[in-house]
Amino acid sequence: MRKTLLLNKDDVHENVQMPELISAIEDAFAAYESGDAQMPPKSYIDLPQYNGDFRSMPAYLEVRGGEYSASQRDSDESRADGDWDAAGIKWVNVHPDNDDKYDLPTVMGTMIYSDPENAFPLALLDGTELTMLRTGAAAAVATDYLAVEDASSMGIIGAGVQSYTQLRAISEVRDIEEVVISDLDEERVADFIDAFEDEFDIRAGSIEEAASCDVLSTVTPVESPIVPREAVGDHTHINAMGADAEGKHELADEVLLDAKLVIDDHAQTTHSGEINVPYNQGVLTDDDIYGAIGDIVLGNLDGRTDADGISVFDSTGLAIQDVAAAHVAYEHAFENDNGYAFDLLGLAE
Amino acid sequence: MRKTLLLNKDDVHENVQMPELISAIEDAFAAYESGDAQMPPKSYIDLPQYNGDFRSMPAYLEVRGGEYSASQRDSDESRADGDWDAAGIKWVNVHPDNDDKYDLPTVMGTMIYSDPENAFPLALLDGTELTMLRTGAAAAVATDYLAVEDASSMGIIGAGVQSYTQLRAISEVRDIEEVVISDLDEERVADFIDAFEDEFDIRAGSIEEAASCDVLSTVTPVESPIVPREAVGDHTHINAMGADAEGKHELADEVLLDAKLVIDDHAQTTHSGEINVPYNQGVLTDDDIYGAIGDIVLGNLDGRTDADGISVFDSTGLAIQDVAAAHVAYEHAFENDNGYAFDLLGLAE
Repeated sequence: MRKTLLLNKDDVHENVQMPELISAIEDAFAAYESGDAQMPPKSYIDLPQYNGDFRSMPAYLEVRGGEYSASQRDSDESRADGDWDAAGIKWVNVHPDNDDKYDLPTVMGTMIYSDPENAFPLALLDGTELTMLRTGAAAAVATDYLAVEDASSMGIIGAGVQSYTQLRAISEVRDIEEVVISDLDEERVADFIDAFEDEFDIRAGSIEEAASCDVLSTVTPVESPIVPREAVGDHTHINAMGADAEGKHELADEVLLDAKLVIDDHAQTTHSGEINVPYNQGVLTDDDIYGAIGDIVLGNLDGRTDADGISVFDSTGLAIQDVAAAHVAYEHAFENDNGYAFDLLGLAE
Repeated sequence: MRKTLLLNKDDVHENVQMPELISAIEDAFAAYESGDAQMPPKSYIDLPQYNGDFRSMPAYLEVRGGEYSASQRDSDESRADGDWDAAGIKWVNVHPDNDDKYDLPTVMGTMIYSDPENAFPLALLDGTELTMLRTGAAAAVATDYLAVEDASSMGIIGAGVQSYTQLRAISEVRDIEEVVISDLDEERVADFIDAFEDEFDIRAGSIEEAASCDVLSTVTPVESPIVPREAVGDHTHINAMGADAEGKHELADEVLLDAKLVIDDHAQTTHSGEINVPYNQGVLTDDDIYGAIGDIVLGNLDGRTDADGISVFDSTGLAIQDVAAAHVAYEHAFENDNGYAFDLLGLAE
């Protein structure tokens, strides 16, 4: 077939099952640390006149399915596995005024997924849904290695679109029963509770209530920390998901300094991740960073040990995650005959 | 409309008329030099195991239609003009074994074209056809400023897919009557002659015959120069289109050193353009470079003057060209109701 498969939001959603995606993201983190991946730096186009920006995120992953994560989860049978060799690029933006001005999401993405062997564009995918899914899956991988084994409560600060996949993904790796959702916007909180009340014991709560749970995900765009040190439970694992630009941070410096601090990528996190502000002020240094999530997956570093108190995963979102997620989406959509096949390049005859 | 327009090869071809594209590329070169554009460096993913690579080429152009080129050509009435504010990214590859191994083109591209104001992906386009068109148009802009006014003969060295748009485009800016096509592959030469014999006095010829014409385009992937100094006519303008990677060059160093040498972008051309080899050997220095094509369009530098002998345009291909071409394709396809509207992001309701 010399056609390109178009996978819209629903196609992506249906063909990316969370347990499989979590394993794929785990593999991607490990491949990146072992050198079985290429990820040029994100490049930015800044549009201050529109209060927005574009980011291009290319990556290549040479991963043998299940190589790293086979022992971690039991979902391997359903995986789009075998040798996976995957390349692509996500073009994504952040335009915070979109909702008010255009009734459009702040973040939209378009993903091109290509065959590395000959570069044929196998699929064009909605990168918006893909971003939400792979971001949730990244938090789940970190939670699996860093949260206490018997974690049963989860707090979420911020009830926007990225928060839904936090709960969906993390509840795949821990038996979450109790959920506290915290947001200043009551309508968002009500919507979030509506979506999950059949599955979890879920309630609205304060930042302190959320931060005392076994697992916490912070998913806000704030520039002044909203989670003070004293609010965090003794053994809480925190996924700091919100910071995606210089100047943003959600957690008080003391939280980061007291935690087992795990990052996804040193260059990205010091540039625009949760730690960017204290790192660039010199308050937090490389000595305070425990290591990369990929090194934990590889077994080069321990995950949680009995000696650990709080832990933090600083997630900036890597292009390798997008390629891994696109791989899963494409393989299943192709099998299931989903999507719309389009002769973009005029090669189908 | 909240759908993304899919423009395949034919849609791109039909909606991009060469005279208009040449003006758009001219505007793009000027905008880049005047700071009305953003073009982060190309980033590469190298795949030596497949003898190939991927390149990502993002750009943003803030150009008012006809601002720079209105006086140059009379095609303005038909242009997709007004304020054009355009962003996008091309994901493109070079896999030289594709033809033999997969019956696929060496170079394939996919282009995402977005609205800078809110980042909505307006169109997804065949970037392969787009690349051929915009590359021809770039040579035409350079030829318009640098060839002798009464140029009537054109040589082309290399009869591959990129050569067709050289003749198509350049014959829009000069009254080309006589054409010499030179290639070691006789079948390619015959195909090229077939395509153009109704319009031009065209014949197969040697490199020397091609290089003595008023205008010459070189479109080969060679790593050792094939055009010697003595073959070049006294007033020939050369478009050096072939070099796109370190180690490639088509023209003898003496040709470059004796010419009025014009480039598209300093960083790209010294990295992978025609001059990359002598430049990195120190044989050719910044003092030998006359200037950027954008500065000639802007009037900051002269194009050809009576004192000039040979001239060379070293074209590496800029992301701003792709965005300008995508703008033209999208605007006309939208007007003409061409293409396939697809609800990629699930926002159309």
